[in-house]
Amino acid sequence: MVLLNNTNEELDMLRGKVRSVTTEIMRAAKERIDLARKIGEIKSKLGIEIRDEKVEDEVRLRVMLLAEEIGLSSQFALQLLNLLLAESEQVQRENTVQKVAEKPTHLAIFSKAKQLEANGKKIIHMEVGEPDYSPPARVGRALAESFPMKLYHYTDTLGIAKLRDAIATKEGGEISRDQVIVTPGGRFAVYNAITCLLKPGQELIVIEPAWPAYKECADLVGVRTKILRTTLEDKWIPDTKRLEGMVNSTTKMIVLNYPNNPTGKVLDKRTTEKIVSIAKDHGLYLLSDEVYADYVFGEFSSVRNYDYSKTIIVGSFSKRYAMTGFRVGYATASKEIISKMTRVQAAAITSVAEPMQYAALAALDVNPSENIELMKRRVSLLYSKLKQMSLRCVEPEGAMYAYPELPKGKEDMALVEKLLEKGVAIAPGSGFGDSYSRFVRISACQPDRILEKGLEVMAYAMREKA
Amino acid sequence: MVLLNNTNEELDMLRGKVRSVTTEIMRAAKERIDLARKIGEIKSKLGIEIRDEKVEDEVRLRVMLLAEEIGLSSQFALQLLNLLLAESEQVQRENTVQKVAEKPTHLAIFSKAKQLEANGKKIIHMEVGEPDYSPPARVGRALAESFPMKLYHYTDTLGIAKLRDAIATKEGGEISRDQVIVTPGGRFAVYNAITCLLKPGQELIVIEPAWPAYKECADLVGVRTKILRTTLEDKWIPDTKRLEGMVNSTTKMIVLNYPNNPTGKVLDKRTTEKIVSIAKDHGLYLLSDEVYADYVFGEFSSVRNYDYSKTIIVGSFSKRYAMTGFRVGYATASKEIISKMTRVQAAAITSVAEPMQYAALAALDVNPSENIELMKRRVSLLYSKLKQMSLRCVEPEGAMYAYPELPKGKEDMALVEKLLEKGVAIAPGSGFGDSYSRFVRISACQPDRILEKGLEVMAYAMREKA
Repeated sequence: MVLLNNTNEELDMLRGKVRSVTTEIMRAAKERIDLARKIGEIKSKLGIEIRDEKVEDEVRLRVMLLAEEIGLSSQFALQLLNLLLAESEQVQRENTVQKVAEKPTHLAIFSKAKQLEANGKKIIHMEVGEPDYSPPARVGRALAESFPMKLYHYTDTLGIAKLRDAIATKEGGEISRDQVIVTPGGRFAVYNAITCLLKPGQELIVIEPAWPAYKECADLVGVRTKILRTTLEDKWIPDTKRLEGMVNSTTKMIVLNYPNNPTGKVLDKRTTEKIVSIAKDHGLYLLSDEVYADYVFGEFSSVRNYDYSKTIIVGSFSKRYAMTGFRVGYATASKEIISKMTRVQAAAITSVAEPMQYAALAALDVNPSENIELMKRRVSLLYSKLKQMSLRCVEPEGAMYAYPELPKGKEDMALVEKLLEKGVAIAPGSGFGDSYSRFVRISACQPDRILEKGLEVMAYAMREKA
Repeated sequence: MVLLNNTNEELDMLRGKVRSVTTEIMRAAKERIDLARKIGEIKSKLGIEIRDEKVEDEVRLRVMLLAEEIGLSSQFALQLLNLLLAESEQVQRENTVQKVAEKPTHLAIFSKAKQLEANGKKIIHMEVGEPDYSPPARVGRALAESFPMKLYHYTDTLGIAKLRDAIATKEGGEISRDQVIVTPGGRFAVYNAITCLLKPGQELIVIEPAWPAYKECADLVGVRTKILRTTLEDKWIPDTKRLEGMVNSTTKMIVLNYPNNPTGKVLDKRTTEKIVSIAKDHGLYLLSDEVYADYVFGEFSSVRNYDYSKTIIVGSFSKRYAMTGFRVGYATASKEIISKMTRVQAAAITSVAEPMQYAALAALDVNPSENIELMKRRVSLLYSKLKQMSLRCVEPEGAMYAYPELPKGKEDMALVEKLLEKGVAIAPGSGFGDSYSRFVRISACQPDRILEKGLEVMAYAMREKA
């Protein structure tokens, strides 16, 4: 209260100081950017990659220590640092020839194939994970009945209670409906979780090869993706030591996707346990995309079994019941996480279409084991044919794809485009990670006869000279 | 090339400099935050609002000039400044008693009312804009037929071509299907446009009272919302001079919502023209949410008529055909904007459920004039009853609501909660803007008899002593 006499004067004085400190910060930022530009020029001459994650991690650690020392909020310090790093990277890229080309994904090929079809060309679709069989008949009935029953209104943002109850039961019955959110496809569950749990500048870890959606969603939110690569030689098993080494103070989430799209890999229990314990030790969210959990040909241990409170599990009706176009998926997690996800869902879409929710509810009564047996036989056929073609491939343990390596000297996009001309659509391996341009993903969502035909065309194309 | 001999040494030297400049920036940031804290303490003692938009605008202008002077990218400088401002605001709030309470919206009341219904209570719903009449019968037929016709697959991200063609025709026929994106509700069109066109730290202007979604979406993305308030006294007409005065270097979008939710205001042509010209002069996006465009009782001039390339117009099937629960809306814009929106849509949802798109397509053949006449009569009844209750209210020129002012001494939430106990749900005015806690929004989506009953209960409740 001693200030009250001259508060306005003091306010003016403080504001003057703020102005000069602001100027100082801007000038220093400019200096830093100029230094980064010079470093970029040197790197360009030496042919060194612009983004050096090791150097970044050191810088981050130093800033964290400094923040603690001078009493700055570490979250703010990291946000500020990330802004500076992003601008430096931007400026360095401007001055080099290193350009990031748009990688064509399976969806880009699907879109191209659809256009060709619209122009009258016949296409064998082995590029997308869209089963050829039909959803259960009762789904059609539920859909037809929804209209006379007036089931076409806004629903609870989380989804209708009956459907959430049924999902909770399907998922083992140890969760309540408050731990379930119904989303327009599993994809929105992923997008939602990344959007509401991570802040711009924070990081998540993705194990590649992987469905590209995780990185796409992270990019949209300004979240940085760190990649842990796995190899065919290691049977696509992630190195958990390297995984742990990648965790730094801005890492907030590990994304798992097993059974894996595109490789069909299923993690062994020990590796899963190790990853859960890394997440626990570092307090990371664990986003486990288990939309292929039904398509498992051996053993599978859901991350749900490890009872870790920061786990988000994504499920979907798309693959289990061949209901891709209904766009119904879900996430299960703690009530706290679901409540955060509710906010994004309410702002972005209000709720999932009510007729689609009732269609999904009708499906849940049906046992999908026939679909699963069928897919297992097809994946097995696919795998044996690829072996006959002398392509290296790890035998899929789940999902609906095979991910073979092309012979030396072959590139995915060249083959994909050649095949598309011949009426066969497959997905380029590089759509699932930059370092996989010698792989392709082949989907087993077609009858045997058509699969065999598609593979024959592929074998023929590979023998042809470019 | 003269550097090549000692490049590694030079790289080390430059990195050392980067380190010390980084430290300098962090220390200066800390100093700035401490100054902000002191200013916050003084403000708190004087009872001054923490966020002062005028001061912020001055600071912004000064930083822009400085950035130009020292050759710093103005976009980066503003991002950096916004980060500093946000942290300062945060720190100032911590030290004051000023707290921002969660404002209950119409959806929160809807959710509460639904819970009461689930427990057996009868509720008259006058809180949401969900028409009581049914969608056209052919929508039900299209839905039933979609299943045997196998219309349940992934579609083009933008939506099926036929639907986009039909929407283009409905919207005047001067746009092509490439200028249409089909979204899960008009809400997602709004969310998508704000997400893909604005960066964190940039600003949009919303004219209040307004549907809360614009600010909710902006908050999620880290975009700042500036509010232009309108008043009942001015018949809810925005002051375009003040609007233009609010535009600064980080302003990127103006959001329009006419016919307005909640007031039913329709902008006159001159005001619309003036706002379009402000957007043009400053190169701002113009997001015009026209989901109530069908419910216009007099004249309405869509922003489409002004041929401005940075316009995004949002439409929906929800209100026109009473199809809220189908979750189908759309945006029309230039091909460039639609292509940006496609990226967000592809990452977040893949595409809208195919059966819902065919249902929407079927609806478009139907003329909704009966619905519109019915709603017009109801809004007119609602308005005349409110007048009889001696409440001040501007006569709605469109949409499906009235937005009366409560008598002096009455607060929206007290009345809303009292009415809910008596089985009548209405929406609090403050859900549409902080300064409207003496207003309520009443929806006319019920038959006359029920509307009248709801209003009787309201009149009675207002006469009661608290």
